[in-house]
Amino acid sequence: MEMRVVNSMNYEEFVSVFGNVVEKCPLIAAAVWTSRPFTSLCALEKNIGDFIDSLPRSGKEGILRCHPNLAGRDLLQGTLSPESLSEQNRAGLTSLTAGQRSQLSELNASYKNRFNFPFVICARMNDRDTIIQQLSSRIRNSPEQELQISIGEVKNICHLRLLDISIQVSQATKL
Amino acid sequence: MEMRVVNSMNYEEFVSVFGNVVEKCPLIAAAVWTSRPFTSLCALEKNIGDFIDSLPRSGKEGILRCHPNLAGRDLLQGTLSPESLSEQNRAGLTSLTAGQRSQLSELNASYKNRFNFPFVICARMNDRDTIIQQLSSRIRNSPEQELQISIGEVKNICHLRLLDISIQVSQATKL
Repeated sequence: MEMRVVNSMNYEEFVSVFGNVVEKCPLIAAAVWTSRPFTSLCALEKNIGDFIDSLPRSGKEGILRCHPNLAGRDLLQGTLSPESLSEQNRAGLTSLTAGQRSQLSELNASYKNRFNFPFVICARMNDRDTIIQQLSSRIRNSPEQELQISIGEVKNICHLRLLDISIQVSQATKL
Repeated sequence: MEMRVVNSMNYEEFVSVFGNVVEKCPLIAAAVWTSRPFTSLCALEKNIGDFIDSLPRSGKEGILRCHPNLAGRDLLQGTLSPESLSEQNRAGLTSLTAGQRSQLSELNASYKNRFNFPFVICARMNDRDTIIQQLSSRIRNSPEQELQISIGEVKNICHLRLLDISIQVSQATKL
């Protein structure tokens, strides 16, 4: 990515482009803008990761609670963010059988009941089967382990969203 | 407010009701849900204030950057949050003369240029004239002073939004 382009963005442009790299948390992009200029995309990503890590436990849980349920109500009602819709779609979550949807819905409910945040996984690094498998397995973790794993998944999702934006910015600057 | 009702909300209901008490920062409501049950509306408000205070400077700046410009593009384009629209409307910012709008727009631009975040003020505790007066005066503050004053205004806005929700919840529970 042309970091010159990114570093020349005012905060409004920056938040408009990077505001959803962490789902529904524009506060995070708006916060890391303070640390510009960024020498590379990796440096920007590291700033985001460090900001997330600096939050108290409740803040990390808050980030997770801003994520939709996989194959949940937002998908059915069409209220997913464009990024989430595309990710759930690629993972095959938009074309589940009734049986798979009901299995996922039950597992999601048990998971939320146990951890008080939704099951978060980088859907693009998985598919329907591994998602259901991971959910069945991660539900047995301790709350501490699961918070850590989930925040790792938030960072994976962020990584791929940053790459997408990088490609879009590169293409736009070539025009 | 019936705190029993608030304390019985799951995190999805809670974020749906309280998600915008700090403008475009549902992360904050999602984070403080961890501290439930709340003994009173004041206790909930204190949790939100404490969470904001716990953020690093960049995080506080991030909160401010999630706020729209007063009488700015979001108002003109109809993309303000319902809460902001109502607040800017009550303060008379939706019916400025061309001269006032242009004055506010120039002052806003200078302010953002100096502080790297937008001018934030609790519009409902002010009117057109005091807003322009405050903007003209606060622009001369140091960045440190101005960050502190602005976060105070975020808390004032949050206070009034919480009261609004409190009234709505009380009315709904009486039905």
